[in-house]
Amino acid sequence: MSPYSARLAALRDHLARSGLDGFVVPLTDEHMSEYVGSYAQRLAWLTGFQGSAGTAIVLADQAAIFTDGRYTLQVREQVSPDEWQYVQVPDVDVATWLADNAAPGARIAYDPWLHTRLWVADTSAILATTGATLVAVDANPIDAVWPDRPAPSDARLTVQRNDIAGASSASKRADIGDWLAAKGADAVILSALDSIAWTLNIRGGDVDHTPVALAYAIVHANGETDLFVAENKIDDAVRQHLGNAVRIHPRDAFDSRLAIFAGRRVVADPERAVAAIFDALDRGGATVLAQRDPVVLAKAIKNPAEIAGHRAASARDGAALTRFLHWVETECPKGGQTELSAAAQLLAFREATGLLLDTSFATISATGAHGASPHYHVTEASNAPILPGQLFLIDSGGQYADGTTDVTRVMPIGAPTAEMRDRFTRVLKGHIAIATAIFPDGTMGGQIDAFARRPLWEAGLDYGHGTGHGIGAYLSVHEGPQRIAQPNYPGGAALEPLRAGMMLSNEPGYYKTGEYGIRIENLVLVEPRVVPGGDPDRSMLGFETLTFAPIERTLIDPALLTPQERAWLNAYHAMVVEVIAPQLDEEDRAWLTAKCAPLS
Amino acid sequence: MSPYSARLAALRDHLARSGLDGFVVPLTDEHMSEYVGSYAQRLAWLTGFQGSAGTAIVLADQAAIFTDGRYTLQVREQVSPDEWQYVQVPDVDVATWLADNAAPGARIAYDPWLHTRLWVADTSAILATTGATLVAVDANPIDAVWPDRPAPSDARLTVQRNDIAGASSASKRADIGDWLAAKGADAVILSALDSIAWTLNIRGGDVDHTPVALAYAIVHANGETDLFVAENKIDDAVRQHLGNAVRIHPRDAFDSRLAIFAGRRVVADPERAVAAIFDALDRGGATVLAQRDPVVLAKAIKNPAEIAGHRAASARDGAALTRFLHWVETECPKGGQTELSAAAQLLAFREATGLLLDTSFATISATGAHGASPHYHVTEASNAPILPGQLFLIDSGGQYADGTTDVTRVMPIGAPTAEMRDRFTRVLKGHIAIATAIFPDGTMGGQIDAFARRPLWEAGLDYGHGTGHGIGAYLSVHEGPQRIAQPNYPGGAALEPLRAGMMLSNEPGYYKTGEYGIRIENLVLVEPRVVPGGDPDRSMLGFETLTFAPIERTLIDPALLTPQERAWLNAYHAMVVEVIAPQLDEEDRAWLTAKCAPLS
Repeated sequence: MSPYSARLAALRDHLARSGLDGFVVPLTDEHMSEYVGSYAQRLAWLTGFQGSAGTAIVLADQAAIFTDGRYTLQVREQVSPDEWQYVQVPDVDVATWLADNAAPGARIAYDPWLHTRLWVADTSAILATTGATLVAVDANPIDAVWPDRPAPSDARLTVQRNDIAGASSASKRADIGDWLAAKGADAVILSALDSIAWTLNIRGGDVDHTPVALAYAIVHANGETDLFVAENKIDDAVRQHLGNAVRIHPRDAFDSRLAIFAGRRVVADPERAVAAIFDALDRGGATVLAQRDPVVLAKAIKNPAEIAGHRAASARDGAALTRFLHWVETECPKGGQTELSAAAQLLAFREATGLLLDTSFATISATGAHGASPHYHVTEASNAPILPGQLFLIDSGGQYADGTTDVTRVMPIGAPTAEMRDRFTRVLKGHIAIATAIFPDGTMGGQIDAFARRPLWEAGLDYGHGTGHGIGAYLSVHEGPQRIAQPNYPGGAALEPLRAGMMLSNEPGYYKTGEYGIRIENLVLVEPRVVPGGDPDRSMLGFETLTFAPIERTLIDPALLTPQERAWLNAYHAMVVEVIAPQLDEEDRAWLTAKCAPLS
Repeated sequence: MSPYSARLAALRDHLARSGLDGFVVPLTDEHMSEYVGSYAQRLAWLTGFQGSAGTAIVLADQAAIFTDGRYTLQVREQVSPDEWQYVQVPDVDVATWLADNAAPGARIAYDPWLHTRLWVADTSAILATTGATLVAVDANPIDAVWPDRPAPSDARLTVQRNDIAGASSASKRADIGDWLAAKGADAVILSALDSIAWTLNIRGGDVDHTPVALAYAIVHANGETDLFVAENKIDDAVRQHLGNAVRIHPRDAFDSRLAIFAGRRVVADPERAVAAIFDALDRGGATVLAQRDPVVLAKAIKNPAEIAGHRAASARDGAALTRFLHWVETECPKGGQTELSAAAQLLAFREATGLLLDTSFATISATGAHGASPHYHVTEASNAPILPGQLFLIDSGGQYADGTTDVTRVMPIGAPTAEMRDRFTRVLKGHIAIATAIFPDGTMGGQIDAFARRPLWEAGLDYGHGTGHGIGAYLSVHEGPQRIAQPNYPGGAALEPLRAGMMLSNEPGYYKTGEYGIRIENLVLVEPRVVPGGDPDRSMLGFETLTFAPIERTLIDPALLTPQERAWLNAYHAMVVEVIAPQLDEEDRAWLTAKCAPLS
């Protein structure tokens, strides 16, 4: 009996003894985080699934795991078909499956600390059509049957210095207070971990690759703040940094604190605060204003210090990546290198900067067919040798105190095929179409996403992911609210107006199943653009590319580029040399300079 | 005292006597029509506003008219500032304004036959925050104070022949029946006038320019249909065409008929059926399934006969337009022509085809600065002479039994300026970017809209309307559900997947306030595209241009065109000659051939 079979049996036994007919297991934490600490990885513990998005449902006589198209293959490798049905979202959604499979009268449990109120309302309504009910549990049933569940991390908080943050926590909290006052509200609940970190200018170590601490915060209209966090995370320096206007409470005091707002107006974010928070506020008699956490937009629009910090981090990171790309070209054709050894080598170059605090996500080191899975994660089991004739794709980033990076490059091992060059060049044309776009202030990412796809569409091709995500400043590598993606991207991220100061990735790709993957990713900054002769009443925006590393020239078919595209590439490569070359030794510098010579 | 002052006073008096504190006056009819018969033009009667979108609110001590940016100027010209506040949507919405201005406890009336249930729910909820209530009235208060209100039209129905419609009404109703059966539903309410006309293969004359009849229909799962329409509209030919499976009832019997569905499942469209229909079904004990009218998508995807009919109508219409453009170039520089005389001349050319049944909308004949209002409507009062140095814009269409056309062209009167040519060429580049787009099946109009804007954006310019709307087959010139527009276009039209067989306009523009307007509009058909070497798992779509008339060459700066764009234009013009020239006399043909000579 596999450990997963035993775990599923234990959970079912526990549910039966609790009078419950089923349980929904999402992949998130009490903060609706995308990446969660090990203590919250209940889906992986129960099913074995290691992907970054999914949900499981356990009923007495069947169980299903819901994943999207990115994980179609992975879920079949990691989760046993003997016990689990594979269901692909959004073709089938969780609520509909439940309504189709739960018995009339069934009591289906959920943990109100792991779902939004909207999810609860929608799922309850659909379940009601079949006579089943959704039942909130006080304690998560998985925790009851997970004997060696990790304790939440006790990593210490660190201070994000004001000169790097670009604004003091006091001024950020004052701005939030003004925002509350304008709404006639008394307080706002901050439950998103990066909103708390940004507001208080603190960082943590409770989630891999994302420097946040498990905490909640309540910011009041006068700027005073209640912070709920394990006290052993806080040393004197942090305590002094936070000051008297930030009152520190144990993290588990948060729930009861929500009961004190009777008759007062409290803002909570329906997408970021879980159902349990709304429930507790309602029970306590607060008037709840369901509004987006005001930090989300403030944090997305980088200030000059954050932009300057990012430039420094990006220059440093680009030099490490350039050294790595040179290493790939030199060493991989000799044989003996693998996805894991390459990832380790890149980490070594980043660590050699002396300033790396973490990678910004688990490096995607993918050779050949592995590259065709956009979210491939190399493990000891999957680790493949890097072989001649393959394309090697590396998607990685670093966490530095002054910035978070994220960059993808592709290198051929030996000579690429004509098809690879055609596809790579089309992806590059799409990348350039985003990089050079000029658009009116207020344009949404969903409006420009297809600029990146058109060169592929013209060849009857496409890619199955968005074109760009926001990114934090020494925070989350995926940060909202904006995105460049199809307009119907979940949560409306692609309908968020782009505004000057936002940062995004620009990462079109192409994936040929079983053969290779291509992606070209730089980060870009949204900036104002004045177009001479343009309509004076129309503010325009454009992108400044922030990432510097060579784009492999042997993969480019110059005949497919327009003169404007070639000019962009040559100017970009000239800038790469300017930014990166001074940081390199002579051998790397010569290699870089040759790689960046103008394309004729 | 102006007539409008007297009307407003009479309405207020009536409201006061009815115990009501206000009334909401939308611009629609009981069918949520975009264009309405004269009997339903209550907003125009009350305020003088002649635009095609707006809402008025009358309170005891103030009154406001809500229009969008298209009508900012027009509303100020037509509606008195002494009695009306001008409010621009969506900056301020009707519900919010009401909540801010209605007194606590106020009873604000609405006509439940003129609003969707969603509007009622949203507005009620917002009003409730201020203690006011929204009250449905049994009879529209305006009708009580409008003594000479026109009776609904008594125009006769006509039969749309099966060979033109491409499918019999019986087969269309059988398809609807199958759709109902698959949903386990018993009947569907059709309240959209074009859905009824399409389903029954009938046409009417109750709305200017749109050949529909005021009616309701209920289609049952067995395909049998109850049609509610004034009996004097129906002659023997129509009665025979409809057959025994279509039972004819007086139009005013519809309301009470909604009461007979107790315990049965009835589909009604929340965007197309008004609140009163849902209310009546609820009162009658029906289980209402809120779903989109199934005719909407079926009607949007044209069948081969409809496409063939459109091609014939378009060729005929293009010849009339070509004769007109030749006339403009020849006659207008001589002086003495006006917007009205030009529109009359175009109508004469269309009538000379012998097959014109109506124009498909009020012709936009706009010279000089008038062209800068995309929805300019020429009247005796506004009629302007066509003068040298101007751009003359003509946006018009014809209703023919075999198709509905819609086309826009611009002609310079004399030599255009360099700026005009630059702007026109950018609009043309955008038009070509849509015409040549290839995209995956399922792509939404909101994804490709920006293709048309990019050449303008690059010059710091844009246009303030969508890029393309659907169009009917001898039906509405604006037809849903699809649209090429910004992704947040109201009602989700720009998020509707484009599918093979849909027809759309392709009409980017540029407007310089006070000087000129440019728009280039052709209709396009969505069609499957096989791209050699493309991903075999990915179905691709493209557009076939359906409209043929020369695009004025003296307005094009060839230096701004790419080789691909020039090739498209030359191929298009070659096709214009092929389709149109055979229909012209020698003089027009020579002119057309010169106009369409390849651009070098």
